[in-house]
Amino acid sequence: MTTLEQSAAEQQGNRASTTERRSLLLRALRDVAGFEQVRDDPLTLDRYARSTSARSTAPLAVVYPDSAQQVAALVKIAAQHQVPVYPISTGKNWGYGDACAVTDGQLVIELSRMNRILSVDPTLAYAVIEPGVTQQQLSQYLLDHRLDLWIDCTGAGPDTSFMGNILERGFGHSPYGNRLQHVAGMTVVLASGELLETGFGHYPNAQATHLFPYGVGPFLDGIFTQSNFGIVTRIGIWLMPKAECLNHFICSVPRHADIGPVVDALRPLRLNGTLRSILHIGNDLRVISGGRVYPREQAGGQRPLPSQLRAELRESAGIGAWTVSGALYGSTLQVAAARHALRKALKGMAAESTFLTERKLKTGAMLARLLGNSAAGKRLRAKVALGESLFAMNRGIPNGRFLAGAYWRRRGGLPADFPRNANPAADNCGMLWVSPIIPMRGADLLALHAMAEPVFREHGFDLFVTFSMINERTLGGVITVAYDKDDPAEVERARQCYRNVFDRCMAAGYIPYRVGNQSMADLDPHGDVYWKTVARIKAALDPDGIIAPGRYQPDKAGES
Amino acid sequence: MTTLEQSAAEQQGNRASTTERRSLLLRALRDVAGFEQVRDDPLTLDRYARSTSARSTAPLAVVYPDSAQQVAALVKIAAQHQVPVYPISTGKNWGYGDACAVTDGQLVIELSRMNRILSVDPTLAYAVIEPGVTQQQLSQYLLDHRLDLWIDCTGAGPDTSFMGNILERGFGHSPYGNRLQHVAGMTVVLASGELLETGFGHYPNAQATHLFPYGVGPFLDGIFTQSNFGIVTRIGIWLMPKAECLNHFICSVPRHADIGPVVDALRPLRLNGTLRSILHIGNDLRVISGGRVYPREQAGGQRPLPSQLRAELRESAGIGAWTVSGALYGSTLQVAAARHALRKALKGMAAESTFLTERKLKTGAMLARLLGNSAAGKRLRAKVALGESLFAMNRGIPNGRFLAGAYWRRRGGLPADFPRNANPAADNCGMLWVSPIIPMRGADLLALHAMAEPVFREHGFDLFVTFSMINERTLGGVITVAYDKDDPAEVERARQCYRNVFDRCMAAGYIPYRVGNQSMADLDPHGDVYWKTVARIKAALDPDGIIAPGRYQPDKAGES
Repeated sequence: MTTLEQSAAEQQGNRASTTERRSLLLRALRDVAGFEQVRDDPLTLDRYARSTSARSTAPLAVVYPDSAQQVAALVKIAAQHQVPVYPISTGKNWGYGDACAVTDGQLVIELSRMNRILSVDPTLAYAVIEPGVTQQQLSQYLLDHRLDLWIDCTGAGPDTSFMGNILERGFGHSPYGNRLQHVAGMTVVLASGELLETGFGHYPNAQATHLFPYGVGPFLDGIFTQSNFGIVTRIGIWLMPKAECLNHFICSVPRHADIGPVVDALRPLRLNGTLRSILHIGNDLRVISGGRVYPREQAGGQRPLPSQLRAELRESAGIGAWTVSGALYGSTLQVAAARHALRKALKGMAAESTFLTERKLKTGAMLARLLGNSAAGKRLRAKVALGESLFAMNRGIPNGRFLAGAYWRRRGGLPADFPRNANPAADNCGMLWVSPIIPMRGADLLALHAMAEPVFREHGFDLFVTFSMINERTLGGVITVAYDKDDPAEVERARQCYRNVFDRCMAAGYIPYRVGNQSMADLDPHGDVYWKTVARIKAALDPDGIIAPGRYQPDKAGES
Repeated sequence: MTTLEQSAAEQQGNRASTTERRSLLLRALRDVAGFEQVRDDPLTLDRYARSTSARSTAPLAVVYPDSAQQVAALVKIAAQHQVPVYPISTGKNWGYGDACAVTDGQLVIELSRMNRILSVDPTLAYAVIEPGVTQQQLSQYLLDHRLDLWIDCTGAGPDTSFMGNILERGFGHSPYGNRLQHVAGMTVVLASGELLETGFGHYPNAQATHLFPYGVGPFLDGIFTQSNFGIVTRIGIWLMPKAECLNHFICSVPRHADIGPVVDALRPLRLNGTLRSILHIGNDLRVISGGRVYPREQAGGQRPLPSQLRAELRESAGIGAWTVSGALYGSTLQVAAARHALRKALKGMAAESTFLTERKLKTGAMLARLLGNSAAGKRLRAKVALGESLFAMNRGIPNGRFLAGAYWRRRGGLPADFPRNANPAADNCGMLWVSPIIPMRGADLLALHAMAEPVFREHGFDLFVTFSMINERTLGGVITVAYDKDDPAEVERARQCYRNVFDRCMAAGYIPYRVGNQSMADLDPHGDVYWKTVARIKAALDPDGIIAPGRYQPDKAGES
């Protein structure tokens, strides 16, 4: 028995003493963080127990420190009380567990008050930030200070933590979209309460801490991503210099099977550096679900979407079976060279390419005004609005509209003020993500699609899927199970559908790049040396298992 | 006392038993690797004890396994006999310790027989290789199989291990020059004898093991670089697609101080992705030392090089105080756009830019033939030869000529067959490298130069220095102390000069990205949390300290 298990057993045997211990713990936490910054009222506990997943967990309490020193002190107290802690940045890990720990009863340490932008260097193009800094905040800071620097954005919404996404190895859209490659110098609170500086940061007076990630000696940063080895409280991130010229490339592929050759035609351009940003390839439903919810009435109770209705929605959105979308950054000449290369590569393909430019958008907006409230005017206006969101996103200005997919099957549809304050977990959205990595080949994309599609159909779900050119050689698939959380039967079907697709992906060797809490226990089906090694490092750095037990730790994740 | 120290103490007390144990060990090793593959004859031991450093160490024996399974078996035997092992790929870590372990008496495991190119995927542009695969071998393989793929080369010579350099976090010249960013999927023999597969490699049937480095869960690859946590026996490396167009950019800066503004003018182009490859900025002596050795007679016994003579050499090489050199890769349009951007950035600078093209080189070669053996003909021929080597290097064809600097002060000058079989350690070259990382700013380059230059002068050495644009925000400085190993006084001065510059760099916060054996002990002057963390991981993965004690392990590195 571990000390934690022991303590759990003792607690079961003695309820009174549990209450006593709990109040001792809370008092100690409050001594460090302040009375108001430790909460265990039912409302708070309920809020943190919400998840887009069918399965959520309840925290013991939530504490809001405002410095690394406080975090260190809290971790020490938790260790003394043998209570595990679950650090979150802002807790908006939508679709992957949200703010929930992997198991019940962990003390959530939310770092949202640590939201300082500690420095921005305009010459060397980097920022040093804390976990609470949101995409929106950093983006706005750069605008307010008139700095010619852009951030990489994700579609997860303006209020999500920049650092949190990096530590989960999320990806964005820009040339800096492979985010972990644009990080240097972390500060990490260890389970011992010590503060670790990675890279060169532990040398006094180091000049390149946030410029050169590797430092000297073993390069540790990677082990603090998708792990529970420490609590990162500061990170250096690189910023993109503003591009002289920006074009948005959109390629529409009318027929399903034709996406294969398009992927194969684009791959060489990603490999040779012509496409430096992360292109996204979405199916029709992925695009449609970005603009509206499930047409419940038109579908007359049917699930999934009847194919006739799907064809109509596709038609009225003016899209094909697949849409490829991504930005070209550079000087005017460089962007022109990239356009030339793209046109050449796609020549003769069953696909239609467009390059959105700022000028085209302006012209479109003007034309839409002239067309007024006619059907054509409305359609053009919607297209211009989407184009403007894409351009803003490419320039590092985040937008909540790309979260709409989470609301697809939600009973109430999109909230009235969407996308303002969009919060899929709080809004009771049902959403699960399977995110397999596949080789960047048309055949793999089609194979994965063919594997998932019938499973979705059988379970009554609409398959949304995006494949992102996450690096030069792979596509990161994001397959969404969007479901109605108010329908218990659908919740159960969603769980089965997710599980079925997850298992098929694993069997096919299309391993996910990231998983939700519900799948942590399934990451080590064979008891292999990789996970043994991870367990040994965990034991070395956190012998009492205080930090986030179960998080990317299959043997402590409980039942799947 | 650790078990190793204990064993050392016991050995001192009992010579006879030491000999007995040694022969037991050798017998056990031979049972695994074969009789011929375990050597402890004086010639072998002497060969492995050679180093360009003043301080070298002697191995216990050398063993040459030919599979990961053999490596695992050898490690287990070594653990049973409480003898540390020192894995090397081909042992050509010139200037950083060569084939030598950090301390005496380690069993060298040389992996040069494991030189299989296990697979090359022309579509997804990667190779899976073993540690013994050399730059030359991989380059030749791609040529032989007429694959349109190039490797990234270093100047360390054709016979150096590709993987070895990556594990030391070396860098090359091309867009793939930041080598660790172009690696996916390692196989590592652990001290336990287990085989660890990183990334997705530990999942059966994984499709993206060598395409997506991170895998799922903690990303471990970084901890097996510059470390002694395991023995990497296989690695996936990414290959560059052949570029449609290649230009080599050379920029000559006549006066020393003018390199500052040139760096500041080039930085935005590196930051915005116009310069995708690693530009190298060398001072006059770095360039001169690439073509000849120290002009002993002309200098009339003086050291360092008298300034008049230096000016003459500079003049006859046709170079300025600084030379910037690097390649542009892409389509014809992309390279033209990059040339345009470079010209614009350098307009009005006190610097002269040239773009070498294949056509220019051909014309130059023809002209040189016409000029015959005239002085102008010879000079042009030398320039053409250098240009051709640079072009070959950019295309991934390695060349030994860039090793010439190591021979600068060698008594016998360059060997007759140089660069064939060049081996600075065996050839008794004296060379030490200090390799600080500095922010990519002209002021930092000038500050570091101003710090090192007087130290070199006082100690009688010629300051060669290169600054490489190792990533988008830093310069990797390589400062060479080239000395005469046959002159004991000069050896001692070299050691002092090295140490002095090393200490000044550390104090200024210009921390080295990599160090030689002689500086391992100096990496942790303050006993900080980073090195404590490294020690904890080491203890978790290699509790008996069997693998390469002292290597990036300051507290086990002995006296500095």
